[in-house]
Amino acid sequence: MIQSVIIIGAGNLATQLAKALCAANIAIWQVYSRTIESASCLANKVGAEPVVDIAKLKPNADLYIFSVKDDALIPCLEKFPFSKSLIVHTAGSIPMSALGSYSEQYGVFYPLQTFSKTKDVDFLEIPICIEAKNDTIYNKLESLASLLTNDVRAVDSLQRQSLHLAAVFVCNFVNHMYQIGHQLMEQNRLSFDILRPLIYETANKIRTTTPKQAQTGPAVRYDQEVMQKQMQQLAKQENLQAIYQLISKDINETHKNNN
Amino acid sequence: MIQSVIIIGAGNLATQLAKALCAANIAIWQVYSRTIESASCLANKVGAEPVVDIAKLKPNADLYIFSVKDDALIPCLEKFPFSKSLIVHTAGSIPMSALGSYSEQYGVFYPLQTFSKTKDVDFLEIPICIEAKNDTIYNKLESLASLLTNDVRAVDSLQRQSLHLAAVFVCNFVNHMYQIGHQLMEQNRLSFDILRPLIYETANKIRTTTPKQAQTGPAVRYDQEVMQKQMQQLAKQENLQAIYQLISKDINETHKNNN
Repeated sequence: MIQSVIIIGAGNLATQLAKALCAANIAIWQVYSRTIESASCLANKVGAEPVVDIAKLKPNADLYIFSVKDDALIPCLEKFPFSKSLIVHTAGSIPMSALGSYSEQYGVFYPLQTFSKTKDVDFLEIPICIEAKNDTIYNKLESLASLLTNDVRAVDSLQRQSLHLAAVFVCNFVNHMYQIGHQLMEQNRLSFDILRPLIYETANKIRTTTPKQAQTGPAVRYDQEVMQKQMQQLAKQENLQAIYQLISKDINETHKNNN
Repeated sequence: MIQSVIIIGAGNLATQLAKALCAANIAIWQVYSRTIESASCLANKVGAEPVVDIAKLKPNADLYIFSVKDDALIPCLEKFPFSKSLIVHTAGSIPMSALGSYSEQYGVFYPLQTFSKTKDVDFLEIPICIEAKNDTIYNKLESLASLLTNDVRAVDSLQRQSLHLAAVFVCNFVNHMYQIGHQLMEQNRLSFDILRPLIYETANKIRTTTPKQAQTGPAVRYDQEVMQKQMQQLAKQENLQAIYQLISKDINETHKNNN
């Protein structure tokens, strides 16, 4: 059973995961980050010791969670001193095998959610995707994940990569559409608030219908008059025009092929 | 006071608006549509008479609501026989002035929401944007809208055009991102359900923060390794590659300019 954890990283995911583990009575021994400020900031929240040198990590924690930016993972692992300890990473796009050279015991612990340092999330319904070198490790990680969520899933490296890609579309790109909406409202001195009911209904609608069935608007109707007018409205914003045109075209093709 | 309404159109918006007005005890006298099937389908739901000929519309209704596809509006108006009756359209992108040649009394009644024929929506929090030729008409339309929602707003034609454009981004384009996520999950035999908590949190997150502050993911981190990997994953889907590249670039530029 996993009872003690050391967190390598203090970013958005590391922060929320550490806080959730702490709330589930898992002891967070240490938090590593490159700067003492960010290490302390998180360490203080979860009763851990901040460290800025990976060589100073305590031995014999039940689990070492590497939750750093993708390109920082290997440099961190290279300094990791305990080749028999259980290590996991939390990255969507990195295969589990990347850990194989650094410890005998490894796995992946990937919560599928968008995290911010300041906005706490309830882990209870967040899917936590687990992969492990063997069944013993899998069971340990599954037990730990079950303390946080009702939705623990076995997801291999290839599936996780696909999930992460889909997540970029339905989360990061969706949020950028909100950002563009925000920008257009500001330009026209309108309140973003007026768009909120539409935003929530758009997300809620697909609880009961597929995204394909849910689609509305000028592109799916192929309402050329509206589309041309809207392209003109974006006349001085070439990047938005390009996005408008490309997505409208793809909406139209998606629905043409299936009517 | 508006007590009797005739609906020209039987699409998504016409359907939900007619049902909401009917529920608010407004008499729907008739529903016009090009085919008797679609006219009857809606008319039956709201106790109205279905008609397929605009010349057969009854005179003296308090309000005639034109809720048809943009390019069908003018052809319908040209057949409209009552040049002294109050008429409105429900279109985001059409200026109010388009109605001026067809009646002495006119305005716009634009509910900002995504509607489907089959999924009923609660109008209570939907912004209804009103514009009118004069104050008397404005007050009539405002009173009617107030029966349906707590959020009635005066929005002129230019503002409404901007709102509609922003709505395309935060609703139609967002929904297309869901559709792409759905497609990627299907291709990899994963359940779309696993993305749901992420989708709802992405919409909810901006209740308490701006979309700019809410952004996460490889593009805002400028994590080139992940972005290159994900472009490769989309290798055989050129349209998705183009969307991935364009939006990632725009996310990056948006955040670069403001850091």
